[in-house]
Amino acid sequence: MKAFVLHGKKDLRRADLARPTAQAEQVIVQVRRAGICGSDMHYYLHGRVGRFVPNRPFVLGHEFAGEVVELGGSVDDSWLGKRVTVDPSIPCTTCEFCRQGRYNLCLSMRFYGSASCDPHLDGGLSEFVAVPRANCFPLPDSVTWGEAALIEPLSVAVHAVFRAGRVAGSSVLVTGGGPIGQFVALVAKAFGAAQVVLSDVANYQRQKALEFGVEAVLDGTSASFEAQAIELSRGGFDIAIEAAGAARALQQALAVARRGATIVQVGTLPSEVTLPLNDVMARELNLVGSFRFANVFGIALDLVSSGRVHIAPCVSAVLPLDSAQTAMQRAIAKLDVIKVQVEP
Amino acid sequence: MKAFVLHGKKDLRRADLARPTAQAEQVIVQVRRAGICGSDMHYYLHGRVGRFVPNRPFVLGHEFAGEVVELGGSVDDSWLGKRVTVDPSIPCTTCEFCRQGRYNLCLSMRFYGSASCDPHLDGGLSEFVAVPRANCFPLPDSVTWGEAALIEPLSVAVHAVFRAGRVAGSSVLVTGGGPIGQFVALVAKAFGAAQVVLSDVANYQRQKALEFGVEAVLDGTSASFEAQAIELSRGGFDIAIEAAGAARALQQALAVARRGATIVQVGTLPSEVTLPLNDVMARELNLVGSFRFANVFGIALDLVSSGRVHIAPCVSAVLPLDSAQTAMQRAIAKLDVIKVQVEP
Amino acid sequence: MKAFVLHGKKDLRRADLARPTAQAEQVIVQVRRAGICGSDMHYYLHGRVGRFVPNRPFVLGHEFAGEVVELGGSVDDSWLGKRVTVDPSIPCTTCEFCRQGRYNLCLSMRFYGSASCDPHLDGGLSEFVAVPRANCFPLPDSVTWGEAALIEPLSVAVHAVFRAGRVAGSSVLVTGGGPIGQFVALVAKAFGAAQVVLSDVANYQRQKALEFGVEAVLDGTSASFEAQAIELSRGGFDIAIEAAGAARALQQALAVARRGATIVQVGTLPSEVTLPLNDVMARELNLVGSFRFANVFGIALDLVSSGRVHIAPCVSAVLPLDSAQTAMQRAIAKLDVIKVQVEP
Amino acid sequence: MKAFVLHGKKDLRRADLARPTAQAEQVIVQVRRAGICGSDMHYYLHGRVGRFVPNRPFVLGHEFAGEVVELGGSVDDSWLGKRVTVDPSIPCTTCEFCRQGRYNLCLSMRFYGSASCDPHLDGGLSEFVAVPRANCFPLPDSVTWGEAALIEPLSVAVHAVFRAGRVAGSSVLVTGGGPIGQFVALVAKAFGAAQVVLSDVANYQRQKALEFGVEAVLDGTSASFEAQAIELSRGGFDIAIEAAGAARALQQALAVARRGATIVQVGTLPSEVTLPLNDVMARELNLVGSFRFANVFGIALDLVSSGRVHIAPCVSAVLPLDSAQTAMQRAIAKLDVIKVQVEP
Repeated sequence: MKAFVLHGKKDLRRADLARPTAQAEQVIVQVRRAGICGSDMHYYLHGRVGRFVPNRPFVLGHEFAGEVVELGGSVDDSWLGKRVTVDPSIPCTTCEFCRQGRYNLCLSMRFYGSASCDPHLDGGLSEFVAVPRANCFPLPDSVTWGEAALIEPLSVAVHAVFRAGRVAGSSVLVTGGGPIGQFVALVAKAFGAAQVVLSDVANYQRQKALEFGVEAVLDGTSASFEAQAIELSRGGFDIAIEAAGAARALQQALAVARRGATIVQVGTLPSEVTLPLNDVMARELNLVGSFRFANVFGIALDLVSSGRVHIAPCVSAVLPLDSAQTAMQRAIAKLDVIKVQVEP
Repeated sequence: MKAFVLHGKKDLRRADLARPTAQAEQVIVQVRRAGICGSDMHYYLHGRVGRFVPNRPFVLGHEFAGEVVELGGSVDDSWLGKRVTVDPSIPCTTCEFCRQGRYNLCLSMRFYGSASCDPHLDGGLSEFVAVPRANCFPLPDSVTWGEAALIEPLSVAVHAVFRAGRVAGSSVLVTGGGPIGQFVALVAKAFGAAQVVLSDVANYQRQKALEFGVEAVLDGTSASFEAQAIELSRGGFDIAIEAAGAARALQQALAVARRGATIVQVGTLPSEVTLPLNDVMARELNLVGSFRFANVFGIALDLVSSGRVHIAPCVSAVLPLDSAQTAMQRAIAKLDVIKVQVEP
Repeated sequence: MKAFVLHGKKDLRRADLARPTAQAEQVIVQVRRAGICGSDMHYYLHGRVGRFVPNRPFVLGHEFAGEVVELGGSVDDSWLGKRVTVDPSIPCTTCEFCRQGRYNLCLSMRFYGSASCDPHLDGGLSEFVAVPRANCFPLPDSVTWGEAALIEPLSVAVHAVFRAGRVAGSSVLVTGGGPIGQFVALVAKAFGAAQVVLSDVANYQRQKALEFGVEAVLDGTSASFEAQAIELSRGGFDIAIEAAGAARALQQALAVARRGATIVQVGTLPSEVTLPLNDVMARELNLVGSFRFANVFGIALDLVSSGRVHIAPCVSAVLPLDSAQTAMQRAIAKLDVIKVQVEP
Repeated sequence: MKAFVLHGKKDLRRADLARPTAQAEQVIVQVRRAGICGSDMHYYLHGRVGRFVPNRPFVLGHEFAGEVVELGGSVDDSWLGKRVTVDPSIPCTTCEFCRQGRYNLCLSMRFYGSASCDPHLDGGLSEFVAVPRANCFPLPDSVTWGEAALIEPLSVAVHAVFRAGRVAGSSVLVTGGGPIGQFVALVAKAFGAAQVVLSDVANYQRQKALEFGVEAVLDGTSASFEAQAIELSRGGFDIAIEAAGAARALQQALAVARRGATIVQVGTLPSEVTLPLNDVMARELNLVGSFRFANVFGIALDLVSSGRVHIAPCVSAVLPLDSAQTAMQRAIAKLDVIKVQVEP
C-alpha cells in the first residue's frame, strides 16, 4: 500500500509498505481522508517535535477517518463496512495519570503518526491503518469525510476550552487563527462564551474567523492591540487561549487578561519564553497548559453531527494522497488555508 | 505619637505624627508588635513595589497587633482593652471581584502601610493606628504578641496553599525559606501534605526549615538540584510553591514538577522571567499567581491558637520601635533571621 | 400610586400608597412590566413561603423593569430616563457568605417583594419602586419590556445551571416546564449541553419546551418514564435539574441519573421528601440546592440582548396592573401559560 | 486451605477450599490479618447488600494483608516474601468511569469478597488469596499487620473526606463512630480541619473518638443535639460526613449544616429516607455520595506509615481465623469494639 514516510528533516517520501493485518480487538481502516496537523509540519520542518525524536522513519498523520475493511479476532461483524473516525490515542490504562482520568498525560501513551512512543505507530498518511476497535467512532451519515478527519483537532480544542474553566458567560480571547485557534473559537461559542475575539498576524485567518462567527478580530501586529483588546472586553478578558504557538501572542494574552483570568497554552511555543511573571502573581492569573485531549472525542463528534459547530469550512484544500508533499507545503505556507487534507 | 515614615528610596525617618482618632465603626489600636515584611523592604530599597509608587511619605507596616484603646461611634464597649491582630485589607465590597469573593483582587482595595491605594493608609510601624472594628480579630490569651503580628503573613501562606488545590496527600516543594516560604511549608504540613521539601540558597533558611519540620531540604545552588528533587519526590512534585521571588527558583520548580502539577507563585519576581513554557503545555502544568489573601485571616489565627502550627520560632529578632531602621537592615540582610519585628 | 398588597392568604388588595422618594444612591423606577413568580403564588396561596412569614402587608413582585424617573443624591444625571431591569437582591456585603462571593446566601439579604427580610421591601406589583442605582441594569434597545422583566427568573436559571457543574457536552434532564424549567432548558442549550430533555406532567408545558428547542420531552405521569429516559440518554443523564418542586419529579431525576451525576434542586419542594438515599451513596450522586442567584444578572441580560436565548415566547399573557388578581389566578392555574406579567 | 464461606443469611461456614494458584501478573498472598467490615456484616445479616445478591456461596472479606508466597508469570522475583496490603478493587480500565478517573464507579468492577461482580471474587477470610501484583502495596517495617488490614477502610475514609471538598480550615461533623466514622475523623484532622466533632448514639464510640482526638462528641440521642451542635460549630458545620448509615443521623447532619455546606453520605442507609429537602435548596446544601474509593490507597498507607494518623487503637479485638463466626458476632454487637479482625 501507499504511504508517506518521514525520513528526516524535510524528507517526506512516498513508500510502498505492506498492508497491515488486524490483530485481536483491532480493525483495518481504509483511510478516506487525513489532515495535516501542526505537529506533522513540525516533524517535517525540524525532524522532531521538542523531546520527541524519531528513531526510525515513520508514517505521519494522526487526523484520519475511513472505512472499516477488515476485522481482527473478537471484533463484532457489525463493524465491517462502518464509516469511522479514529481517536489516535492508546493510553496504557494503568499508570497514575490514566487511573486519575488524565490519560493524555499517560506515561506510556501510544499515539498514531507520532515519535512520542516507542515503537512509533505509523499514522494516517497511508491507505490502510490497523487500529483498536475501541478507538473507532462510527459516523452518522450527515458527517462528511472532511469533517470526520477534523474530529481529532476539534477534540484538542474542546480539551483546551475545558482546561479554561467556566467559559459560559465569559469573554474569551483566542490568539492564533490556525485550525486549533479557529476550532477553539467555535467551541467557546458553542459552550456559551459571552464574547469570543480572535487575534492573528495574518489577514486571511482573521477574515475566516469573522466568517465563522467570532464577535471581533484583532491584528496581532497592531501597536494598539492592547488598547483595542481592553476596550472590546470592557476591562480585560476572563479567559485567553493561546493557539498561535508564538511568544508574542502569549505576552499579549497576559497583558489583556482580567484579574484572576485563566490563560490556556495549547500552541507549541519556542523552548524559552520571557514573560512578566510578576504580573501573574499580582493579578492572580492562572496559566495552564493543554496537551492533546482526554474523554472528549465523543463530545467533539457530537458537536459536529448535531450541527452545533460547523467545521467543514475550515477545510481549505483537499489533495490526492499522492500529493502529500504539496499538501504539506501548502499547510506550512498558511497562505489562504486553514486546514489542508489529503484523500487516498 | 512616634512612627516611621518612608520618604523615598532608603529614606525611612522617625516622625512625630498626630495620634489618629477613631471614626464611626473604627477603633484605635495601640501597636504592641509589628513585623517587617518583604514588601516593606521592597519599598525601602526601591522606593516602590512594582506598579505601586508612593505619592506622599507614608508609614510602613501591615503586620501588626495591639490593644484596643479607643472606640469610634457604634462600636460595642466590650471591645475596649481587647488584644487584637489586624487584617490590613479593606476591600470596597462592591466591585466585581469583591462580589465574587475574590476581594484580594478588589479594584479599590485599601491596605495599611501600602502605596497600592490612594490615599495611602499609614501602617503599623507606629504607636497607634485607626482601623475598622471589623478588621480586628480578638486574640486568645495563648497567642503571644509575636505570633499575633505573624497572622497576616501566615494568611498569605494559607491563601497560597489554597491556590495550590488539593495539598492533602500530595508532595509539595516550597522554594524560598523566608517567612512566607517557611509558613507555606508549615501550612502545607498542617493541611495534610504527604511530603514537604523546602529549597533555599542559604544554609540558615534550610536549617530552620528542618527544625520547623519539613521532610527534607534542597540547596538551590546545587548542580544536582533537579536529580535530588526528582528522587526525593519519586518522579516529581505534585505541587510547588515559589516563595523566593527568584526566577531561578521558579525555573527549578517547573523542572521538578510532576505532569499535571500546580505551581503557585507567591513571591515577588523580577518584571521579566524566562521560562520553558512549552513544557507548561506539554506536561499540562498549572502556573498560578497568589496575591495577598481573602477569607482566611480567621483560619490563620485558628491554626496558631489551636497549636496546629507553631510559628513563634520564626521570630528571629524583636527590636524597639525606635530601632526600626536597624530592624529593616537586619531583615534585608537575611543573615540568621527569618522574621524581624519591632515593638513600640 | 397604585400597588398590590398581600394582606394574608388569598388576600391580595389594590392599594393607593405614597410614591417612594429616592434616597442617596437610589433611583425611582417607574415600573413598565412585572412578572408573577412561583414564590408570589406561594405567598398568595399560603400566606408565607416556608420560613418566610410576613409581619406586615407588603407589595408582591420581584421581577420588574421600567424607566428611571427620579434620581437620589450622588446618582449621575445620565441615569435619568434610562430603561432598566432591576436585580432585586441587596446583600449586606459583609457577612461571611457575602465575603466569599455567595451573596445569595447572605445572612441579612434584603430582597424586593419578599418577607425574607425585615423590614420587608415592597415589590414591583406597583407603579413606582425606589431601588439602589447599583441594582439597575440598563437595557439595550433590542430588549423589550417583557424580556426585561424576565431577566430575574432567567438569572435563577443561569445560577442553577452553574450549580450543575460542567453542562457543556453533557446530557441534561430538566424536570418541570414552568418558567424556571423552560429557562433552565434554554440556558443549558446555550451553554453547550449535548442533549436537553424536559419532563412535565402537563402537555402544554411539554409542547412549549419542544417549541423552544429541547431535543425531547417526557411525560412525568408515564409508567415508562424511567425506561424512556434511560434510553434517550443512553444510560442515564449526566445532569438533572429539578424545577417542578415535586417530590415525584426529584425521585424520577435520581432514578435516571448516570453514576456520578449531579442533580440540582431549584424548585420549592414540600417540607419532607422520601428518597432512595442509599442510591445517592452507592452511585456517588451529588444532590445540590440552588437558591436565587449571585453574580449572574449581567450574564442573563447578555444572553437575551445578544440573542443567544429567546425568552420572549415564554410570556404567555400580559394584563394591566389593575388586573393583578386575575393575573395571579391565571399564573396559578397554569393552563396554557408559562409566564404571566402585568403592566402598570 | 481454610476459608469462611457465606452460604446465605446468617450462614457463614468454615470450608476447606483448594489453594488458588497464581496466574500471570498475579501473586498468592498468605493472609496474616483480615478485618470484618460493615458490608461483611450486612451480607451475613441480610444475605445481600442492596442490589448485590450472591449467586453462589463465596468467601467474605476485602480488608486483608499478608505475605507474598508465590509469584505468577511475569512478576518480578523481588516480590517473593514481601509483606503487602491489598487493594481489593480491580476496575475494568476501559469503561467511561475508569477513563475519567472515577474507577470506583466502574461498570464492571471486580472486588474481593463481594457479590457486586460476576463471577464473585473470593475474599480474605481465608488462608490464601490470588491477587494481581498491581493490587499489592508493600509495607514498611513500621506498619503492623493490624494496621495493614485497615488501609482499605482508611481508604474509604480518605475518599469520603476528599468528596467533602476543602476540609482544611473547616468545621467538620462526623455522624457515626464505627470504624469508618472514626477514620473519617482522623483523616479530617490530618487534612487540617479546624474542628472535628463526632456524634454517635453509643457511649463507647463517643469515648473512643475523644481518645483518638476529636475536639468534642455529641450524643445522637440527646434532645438538645441540634442546639449543642450549632453552639459548638458557632453557627453550623461547614462539612458533615454521615458514616452511621442511619436516617436520623443524616437528618441531624442536615439540620446543623451551615448554609452552603457539603454533607457526604458514606454509610449504607435504609432504602428510603425522609429528608427536609426544601432546606437543601433554600440553604444551597450539597448532599454527595461516597462509594468505596479511587486513587487513594497509597495516600492512606502513607498516612499510617508516616505516623500522621494512628489507627492501631481502632483494632479492638483480634481472633483466630477459626473463630471467624465469633468475630462476626462481636463486630455486629458493637459493644466495646470499633474494628474486629481475624488472623489465620
